[in-house]
Amino acid sequence: MNKAQLISNIKSKGSFLCVGLDPVKEKVPAHIVEKEDWIFEFNKAIIDEVAQHCVAFKANTAFFECYGSWGWAQLEKTASYLRKHQPDHFLIADAKRGDIGNTSSMYAKAFFEHMDFDAVTVAPYMGEDSVKPFLAFKDKWVILLALTSNKGSQDFQYHGSPSLFKEVMTVSKHWASSENLMYVAGATRGKDLQEVRKTAAEYFLLIPGIGAQGGDLAEVCKYAAHSKEISILVNSSRGIIYAGSGENFAQEAAKAAAEVHAQMQTFLQTL
Amino acid sequence: MNKAQLISNIKSKGSFLCVGLDPVKEKVPAHIVEKEDWIFEFNKAIIDEVAQHCVAFKANTAFFECYGSWGWAQLEKTASYLRKHQPDHFLIADAKRGDIGNTSSMYAKAFFEHMDFDAVTVAPYMGEDSVKPFLAFKDKWVILLALTSNKGSQDFQYHGSPSLFKEVMTVSKHWASSENLMYVAGATRGKDLQEVRKTAAEYFLLIPGIGAQGGDLAEVCKYAAHSKEISILVNSSRGIIYAGSGENFAQEAAKAAAEVHAQMQTFLQTL
Repeated sequence: MNKAQLISNIKSKGSFLCVGLDPVKEKVPAHIVEKEDWIFEFNKAIIDEVAQHCVAFKANTAFFECYGSWGWAQLEKTASYLRKHQPDHFLIADAKRGDIGNTSSMYAKAFFEHMDFDAVTVAPYMGEDSVKPFLAFKDKWVILLALTSNKGSQDFQYHGSPSLFKEVMTVSKHWASSENLMYVAGATRGKDLQEVRKTAAEYFLLIPGIGAQGGDLAEVCKYAAHSKEISILVNSSRGIIYAGSGENFAQEAAKAAAEVHAQMQTFLQTL
Repeated sequence: MNKAQLISNIKSKGSFLCVGLDPVKEKVPAHIVEKEDWIFEFNKAIIDEVAQHCVAFKANTAFFECYGSWGWAQLEKTASYLRKHQPDHFLIADAKRGDIGNTSSMYAKAFFEHMDFDAVTVAPYMGEDSVKPFLAFKDKWVILLALTSNKGSQDFQYHGSPSLFKEVMTVSKHWASSENLMYVAGATRGKDLQEVRKTAAEYFLLIPGIGAQGGDLAEVCKYAAHSKEISILVNSSRGIIYAGSGENFAQEAAKAAAEVHAQMQTFLQTL
């Protein structure tokens, strides 16, 4: 999916919500966990109900990988179901990969060839040749970690002057245009989002951290949204997919997603 | 495996060689590729022949992951074969993972519970809470990226003053002792290895980059080895596992490993 399509989807739907798929056995309803493909069945039910409220889905690979090859098969099923039934949604593999060039090429194959995600999150520590292989695919995206939503973001992301997160953006902007590079910028970092937006004015931001992690949607919109191109995808995982825990968990998830959707619609009308 | 066991294995074998398993279809001999489990069969043959010359094996997860769930099953088979047949070898999952706390916990489960690796390589960008979950396992190790062997290491790892790679080591030393934390320090960075050794005097270093990437073993030994505890694992992947390409590829690999082993034995005698 290219940038124009993504912006058009956001505007026509009135939503820049990304729903994160983090399947955790202890939180998935009991009647689903007893199924053979419980991860896929859980995701499928969530996807079917919440797709109307979001423009993107983000699969967190760790939550599949902890079950090894079986978990990876669930990820493949989920990705393939998404591609088939939600062709207009932007599909993110939240994998935070990154290695020397020939190794990153293999990761890129995993997510862009073997599966058909639109984007992969990538860690910047190893520099240009660790990121470039992901950028070699047409209409596929790198979402590079800049300023993350967790407490540990303070350990190194503010190191140096300019802060490392700004340096990462300033340098990596030379590797790719806003047509296939985005940045991760945590919702919990409040005003720093302004800095991120200034540093990468025309780039999309993937913003995790609203909901369970405590970030505030109104603040995110105020500091990070681009007046014309919107250019933000706001992710919520646990706050939506675990909104309910009974038979009607998927409808509860849809209700939680609908609330965020409504807030986003209202915000978009102010632009 | 704990630090004392690792040092003892190195001294008794006269080797601090780690052999990297990076299975690439185009490089694996044709008579192996035609087998159903060609990745496992290739690894198994290499492991059986080279184990006598090394103290560690490192599986690069990307080279399995690019084949999705099937590739992951090959990784599981390889890890389980290694654990069973080479119980004295230190087993590294070269995965370069790292995410917010609850996600890193899932990655730790993947490599330390679902599979039984001794160590995982972790990227430091997201800070303490992204690394800590890997450190919660007894006698399991984090190998944190400090100074990598690729060209892109120059993009961010020298950022700020002190350089980011030093800051990463200085800060992370407070998270864990040298009993379950190591650092990645590339062989191609020559004299910088001295800085790494100074910054983390008592910590083991995993040193990739000799062989195909151009690093020099004598230089590595000179700058990075610890006089009493050795404290280096030097990795070679392509230079060993693809030394031959015919029927006797595993014997050719063993010959290449034996050469490195001999150099290491000679070096260890000088200490």
